[in-house]
Amino acid sequence: MKSDPQQLRAHFRDHSKTILDRYFEFLRFESISTDPTYRDQVLKCCEWVTERFYAEGFETTLWQTPGYATICAKWRSPDPDAPHVLIYGHYDVQPVDPLALWESPPFEPTVRDGHVYARGAQDNKGQISFMLEAAFYLLKRDGKLPLNVTFIIEGEEEIGSPGLQQVLKDHAEELRADYALIVDCQIPSMQTPAVTVGLRGCGLMSVTLTGSTMDLHSGQNGGLAYNPNHAMVEMLAKLHNADGSVAVPGFYDGIIPITAEERDGIDFSFDEASYHTISGVVPTGGEHGLLPNERRWLRPTLEINGIGGGYTGDGFKTVIPAVSKAKLSCRFVPGQNTRRCLELVEAFLQQHCPAGITLQTEIAPGTSEGIRTSPKARATQECAAAFAEVFGLPVKCVLEGWSVPVTNSLSEVSGADFVGIGLALLSDNMHAPNENYSLERIEMGFAAGVRMLERLGAKE
Amino acid sequence: MKSDPQQLRAHFRDHSKTILDRYFEFLRFESISTDPTYRDQVLKCCEWVTERFYAEGFETTLWQTPGYATICAKWRSPDPDAPHVLIYGHYDVQPVDPLALWESPPFEPTVRDGHVYARGAQDNKGQISFMLEAAFYLLKRDGKLPLNVTFIIEGEEEIGSPGLQQVLKDHAEELRADYALIVDCQIPSMQTPAVTVGLRGCGLMSVTLTGSTMDLHSGQNGGLAYNPNHAMVEMLAKLHNADGSVAVPGFYDGIIPITAEERDGIDFSFDEASYHTISGVVPTGGEHGLLPNERRWLRPTLEINGIGGGYTGDGFKTVIPAVSKAKLSCRFVPGQNTRRCLELVEAFLQQHCPAGITLQTEIAPGTSEGIRTSPKARATQECAAAFAEVFGLPVKCVLEGWSVPVTNSLSEVSGADFVGIGLALLSDNMHAPNENYSLERIEMGFAAGVRMLERLGAKE
Repeated sequence: MKSDPQQLRAHFRDHSKTILDRYFEFLRFESISTDPTYRDQVLKCCEWVTERFYAEGFETTLWQTPGYATICAKWRSPDPDAPHVLIYGHYDVQPVDPLALWESPPFEPTVRDGHVYARGAQDNKGQISFMLEAAFYLLKRDGKLPLNVTFIIEGEEEIGSPGLQQVLKDHAEELRADYALIVDCQIPSMQTPAVTVGLRGCGLMSVTLTGSTMDLHSGQNGGLAYNPNHAMVEMLAKLHNADGSVAVPGFYDGIIPITAEERDGIDFSFDEASYHTISGVVPTGGEHGLLPNERRWLRPTLEINGIGGGYTGDGFKTVIPAVSKAKLSCRFVPGQNTRRCLELVEAFLQQHCPAGITLQTEIAPGTSEGIRTSPKARATQECAAAFAEVFGLPVKCVLEGWSVPVTNSLSEVSGADFVGIGLALLSDNMHAPNENYSLERIEMGFAAGVRMLERLGAKE
Repeated sequence: MKSDPQQLRAHFRDHSKTILDRYFEFLRFESISTDPTYRDQVLKCCEWVTERFYAEGFETTLWQTPGYATICAKWRSPDPDAPHVLIYGHYDVQPVDPLALWESPPFEPTVRDGHVYARGAQDNKGQISFMLEAAFYLLKRDGKLPLNVTFIIEGEEEIGSPGLQQVLKDHAEELRADYALIVDCQIPSMQTPAVTVGLRGCGLMSVTLTGSTMDLHSGQNGGLAYNPNHAMVEMLAKLHNADGSVAVPGFYDGIIPITAEERDGIDFSFDEASYHTISGVVPTGGEHGLLPNERRWLRPTLEINGIGGGYTGDGFKTVIPAVSKAKLSCRFVPGQNTRRCLELVEAFLQQHCPAGITLQTEIAPGTSEGIRTSPKARATQECAAAFAEVFGLPVKCVLEGWSVPVTNSLSEVSGADFVGIGLALLSDNMHAPNENYSLERIEMGFAAGVRMLERLGAKE
């Protein structure tokens, strides 16, 4: 069957009130996985998604993990030759602070100028919603789906998927699949639809430096106690060379260069003017001498996501703080061993920790590896074609600088070709205040989602 | 008149309930000058101190400033040849965070093991209280004071005394004096009573680095946007050389070396074991190759009192923050021009700010210069002798690493010999959680205070 994208979009608009009500209900859960304060809300959100699949006739199970559960929802075709697609998304979201910068409450979805503002509006509740709606619509319309479908919706993506990565191999049999759609990706712009053929891996580390047993007066002790804030800036400053590269020895070891075929199929163009308009900055970060998209797609990075020590409130407090803290994250590319690289960073910091300061580092359990797939794989081609139908524009292959931590493990366990899809834009303020997603893209995503399932279900 | 220190202490103990009630009332005001939230409490505290002076028969006026007022309380002798002593203290206190580390509420004074725990218990409400009680006691007992006394109690010491320094010269005539007691100083230990013959000056600066207009996703933007946290650690790390010295060109210009007489009269010994016991650290900070007390008394320092950017809460948030902030303070020694040095730091930071990052610095209005006086001056000698009587021990001359910002201006305007007195100890947790002061020292301070007034009032 080949549905008409315009008719699909018209159907969406006719039912938009019902669809958006469900989407808003999803958004109201404060499902912040990184902060234990929100545990109840994460659990309730999981239950709500589970019930939706069950109500639509999916065989729905929860995979328990040491943290939050993963929802596995299956529809199986009576046709023994039907292919099998995995569709991956997540129900957890990032924290919301700084709360003061939100123009409307982050968990009360608000529509302004055709955009829904809420934490998770795009990442990932918005994106996964259009795929759920697409599958539910097809199943209702046709009484069946064009192929075997398994949704894998987890609750720990924002903390590196430690639980799901741990239990994935226990489900290897049921996960054997042909295609894996990672519904957590972006397009360069509305004029440049794209599918994603590679993601960076990610690893997180917290750094704590301790000096004295209590904050000290900076006049009484300045010149005596080594200030943990000084140790922190000195140690962290050493992590990068003057050319923007990471200074940790061995950090770049093993990186697999991009092949000619990959480079040929991937669009590396970057619209600097539009990036400046949206973000307010020119891209001066990363390694010197490389194109912007080479820096964020083909090269690993190390970022200080947070740093804090002493008094930073209004006015001044003249202390030498007892403790200084930082949170680091690295992005990795294929060929690097994430865990080993993080250990190299730990060792490097240890080596540069000054006398009088105690260093504690902790690598967060959820780590992931970088991954790339061929622009010519069938999953890539069919999803790109579906977007082309909906956008009426040629669709490019791009890489992505961010991570969907489970992609690598999921691809390995299932044997499936992965492709990253999604209609995120940089202007969505993902992970930041005033996250938003346009109603137009949910509608387009719904139409494209239906067409992807139809295309992938068609016999080769 | 020569009171007996033991009898003075006995008097204090007999009236300790009344004296401590007044002290605790003083401590309950949340008079945090740096944070505008506490404005009402600072004003109420000022009023309370004013009324105390007035009730005891002092001619009491308020010197208005752009910020909080200074209380000027005078008692004038009928003897035209009576000398004149200025007694300086402050009614404002430091902020209390991190609040969670306080074992009892910071503004509810609590006695444990003979120590009063509260913000300001020592700095400066505790120290100034014993001088007030000493003067009030003498006036009541004798119907007069042995010399002209002017108390100057201000409300902006913790923010650099910008207001008082501005209005001081308007009061030059009434401030002409022989002695100026800065009641905000410490002793090395209970076995080593001391008076202070020098203080460092201080200047404060805030540093704000801005990159993007909103926090950015560190995967999507890592390698593109220059992280303001990176700029911050790189710029701040450059402020110090590997030998612990400040790397800002010109920072050390003009420093007046200590004279042979000063060095001879000042005790530079430092008890490293006791410092470690109290603070939990060995003194590894400051410039290499100098004694601990040379580093904190004779050399300027630059400290990062606070640094903050991005997410440092529980878990992780993988952002490139839009903004990174820091608060710096410098301590200065005689010969340096505080304001000029801070401007050199500003220029240095500006010079090292990377492309793509906007730097904003702001020098706080309250700055002060370093100062030293002779160990042989009469104020020094008489105050030391008063402590010697009370402690039954020899009294040393020391310098102090901290700042009482107004000391220099007050000394200049009044023409008085200044001396720093006080019974603070490092273990008082000044500026930190669980600030405390011992009841024993308030009693000893009271006895010493009476003896200082008597000694300074005696004809030379």
